Amino acid sequence: MVSEQLPSRTENFSEWYNRLVIQAELADYAPVRGCMVVRPYGWALWENIKSALDRRFKATGHVNAAFPLFIPMSFMEREREHVEGFSPELAIVTIGGGQELEEPLVVRPTSETIIGHMYAKWIKSYRDLPVLINLWNSVVRWEMRTKLFLRTTEFYWQEGHTAHVSEEEAKNETLQMLDVYADFAENEAAVPVIKGLKSESEKFAGALHSYSIEAMMGDTRALQAGTSHNLGENFARAFEIRYLDRDNNLQYCWTTSWGLSTRFVGAIIMVHGDDQGLILPPRLAPYQVVIVPIFKNEDERSVVMQTVEKIQGQLGDFRVKLDDREGLTPGFKFNDWEMRGVPLRIEVGPKDVENRTVALARRDQPGKAGKQVVPQEGLSAAVADLLTGIQSSIFERAKTFRDENTYQPEDYETFKEIVKKGWADVWWCCETSCEMDIKEDTKASSRVIPLDQPGGEGVCFHCGEKATKRAIFARAY
Amino acid sequence: MVSEQLPSRTENFSEWYNRLVIQAELADYAPVRGCMVVRPYGWALWENIKSALDRRFKATGHVNAAFPLFIPMSFMEREREHVEGFSPELAIVTIGGGQELEEPLVVRPTSETIIGHMYAKWIKSYRDLPVLINLWNSVVRWEMRTKLFLRTTEFYWQEGHTAHVSEEEAKNETLQMLDVYADFAENEAAVPVIKGLKSESEKFAGALHSYSIEAMMGDTRALQAGTSHNLGENFARAFEIRYLDRDNNLQYCWTTSWGLSTRFVGAIIMVHGDDQGLILPPRLAPYQVVIVPIFKNEDERSVVMQTVEKIQGQLGDFRVKLDDREGLTPGFKFNDWEMRGVPLRIEVGPKDVENRTVALARRDQPGKAGKQVVPQEGLSAAVADLLTGIQSSIFERAKTFRDENTYQPEDYETFKEIVKKGWADVWWCCETSCEMDIKEDTKASSRVIPLDQPGGEGVCFHCGEKATKRAIFARAY
Repeated sequence: MVSEQLPSRTENFSEWYNRLVIQAELADYAPVRGCMVVRPYGWALWENIKSALDRRFKATGHVNAAFPLFIPMSFMEREREHVEGFSPELAIVTIGGGQELEEPLVVRPTSETIIGHMYAKWIKSYRDLPVLINLWNSVVRWEMRTKLFLRTTEFYWQEGHTAHVSEEEAKNETLQMLDVYADFAENEAAVPVIKGLKSESEKFAGALHSYSIEAMMGDTRALQAGTSHNLGENFARAFEIRYLDRDNNLQYCWTTSWGLSTRFVGAIIMVHGDDQGLILPPRLAPYQVVIVPIFKNEDERSVVMQTVEKIQGQLGDFRVKLDDREGLTPGFKFNDWEMRGVPLRIEVGPKDVENRTVALARRDQPGKAGKQVVPQEGLSAAVADLLTGIQSSIFERAKTFRDENTYQPEDYETFKEIVKKGWADVWWCCETSCEMDIKEDTKASSRVIPLDQPGGEGVCFHCGEKATKRAIFARAY
Repeated sequence: MVSEQLPSRTENFSEWYNRLVIQAELADYAPVRGCMVVRPYGWALWENIKSALDRRFKATGHVNAAFPLFIPMSFMEREREHVEGFSPELAIVTIGGGQELEEPLVVRPTSETIIGHMYAKWIKSYRDLPVLINLWNSVVRWEMRTKLFLRTTEFYWQEGHTAHVSEEEAKNETLQMLDVYADFAENEAAVPVIKGLKSESEKFAGALHSYSIEAMMGDTRALQAGTSHNLGENFARAFEIRYLDRDNNLQYCWTTSWGLSTRFVGAIIMVHGDDQGLILPPRLAPYQVVIVPIFKNEDERSVVMQTVEKIQGQLGDFRVKLDDREGLTPGFKFNDWEMRGVPLRIEVGPKDVENRTVALARRDQPGKAGKQVVPQEGLSAAVADLLTGIQSSIFERAKTFRDENTYQPEDYETFKEIVKKGWADVWWCCETSCEMDIKEDTKASSRVIPLDQPGGEGVCFHCGEKATKRAIFARAY
């Protein structure tokens, strides 16, 4: 039980992140290359993310189901771009029940293909549409360079898969789910995001159009935090997903898919954390409040604990952790829970008992600024207000940080300097060859062509061709 | 949309089951040998099972986490009985990212080994104990003969894994979780169960003692519906899970594991269903109530739908489905929802609008016996009462059925006849050689040595040796 000093974020952001994930007991390295164990504290955070998203999925008419972990290799090969995109990353089962398999099985990297096969069987008529199914599961992609939560061989996510009668319906669904992700990110995780279209080279293997929400991390790099794909008729044609329309004509469906993964846990860590450790958004934090009792002897302990019990009773609407561990000083506990990002700390000592008060400390405002003494009476309302305040304050801080680190370079030389230290918001021609040059030269890629465009036109910052879109370029996770 | 006639349960129970699972859209066969797709209706049932269990796990101090899907082959080999039990059933990944792997990876059949490895790393002192972790995931066992929900290559479950300081604590945990399962089975699923110890030949590969809850299916066969294992120090010794006790001595932990799977969905189907289809217990049913509006023309439709809307508003505490599908007769809808097991149907027609009434039909009492007309006023209370009544009535019916089909044969000849048509409750010597003979001879195995014993002693029904325990023998799924 030793709380080690973390490296500072500015000195070594990457090492700060790696150490913090382990020290906060969010996750640990598994004894399998590139895999992680998500520990109870990290999983509780993911469960809160899941339930915030699941509520939104159900409110927009989606239902959950489960599809197999294994996909026949031949399915992967039916959609050309899909197999090209995924085949270098596959984990393959070749032995089952002691026998070599006739057809190898792929451990799913994503489920479009096996879902395509089943939808083709289930969908007969326009009456069966839309099909709006979501899965909560894990997928496997054989990554060469891994980092806990951000890029692991196995990761946890949801994948939505829908089928529709028309292009318009599919487009609306794709954009609706992008909105759901943005709403979740900003209002639950306090992570400001930009919604937009991915470039041709950044889109999903097999999609017609991919959209994403992009967030700026604490080191100014970008993270794709959720994606929504309009798959056009591509998978419908590969798997023969067809329906009889009202006039009895056989038509191909339009399909979509959309996903958000445990990467998002990484985003929360990197957007909000500071040199002391995690700062978790109150709406998702496993513990919203930690109570630390303070006493010097058994007499004080017994008096303080009576008050603590009363306070716990008042705070039934919140996720509260009482730290009654023995043999640890209050100071150690303060540091420990600061490192673990609990939004609000309540300290109760003998003087508080006497004065009918408690001391509150906000995680987002370390030191004296975030401390106050409040009456025990009405504590629940005070806690509710503070949690709401912390939620919006960390959102605003992240937004200001992003805005302050987003620049509008007008020429390529300035751009090259900008993407070493922030985001570039530029007029861009949107051509793949242009993007490839930029990427090779600067390691920055187009993150997103924002849905929210100023209009008008300009000149591509790199190739000088006419440009009708502004795009965000950045180095990315 | 054709509702086919199911085979009768008495004529062909197995075919009745297979057809019902497909027709009710609980699950479908996947294009991968032995795997299933759990469709939204089946998954919603499983989600309700999950949340009823998860609530109980958390109330008994457990937390959730996630461990990797892949286990290094060498881990499996560390516990001798464990590897012997599981190796014929393994699916093995030999290729990752285009390369042959140096060490093959097993797709987890259960997670004791990889958990043992991590617990050895995390647990240092008695202060770190107990560790009480549960996982919700899927596991893979290469089964030769599969049946939807009951035995599939991949299945969904939870696996609890705990570590303790002493034999006594581990035993208490094992029995506590058995109680949790029994409480869930009887009070949520309305499935009566018998708690008991498994015989040596039926216990988990690597356990010291295994316990299970056993339920009688509608064809009188037994189904092991949940298991809880005291693993002794077996895995702790294999993986070096040790702690320093209060006196600074290094000690091995005692560990347990316990699981309940999507098999339980099969149990619910087979315990409660009838020739018309499913009968779902109200506490777990995806829809507790279905509303079917009845009208002949557009005028009637508009009047009826106004009342339906009002009724929906009253029933906000329940999971309600409104069947407003067009082009289908009310009669078709009645049959459809009976087949799908919705506990309570509300019919609303023009006469009901006029009389401010609705017609209610109980799924567990088909025909006139289960029908009644009640006032719209106070409908919510009437629905609550009826659902409670249905829940206890189907439990009592299942219990009576089990009791009527459980016999106490006193000699082996009678036993052989009994186990063709029911359960045998017998004095048994509990010897493995005796059990093997019986199994080969009759296909019946010892299901459980009930915790609840009459005391005294008798003579083994098969070998004639002294017997101090009564045991349940039956053919099993």
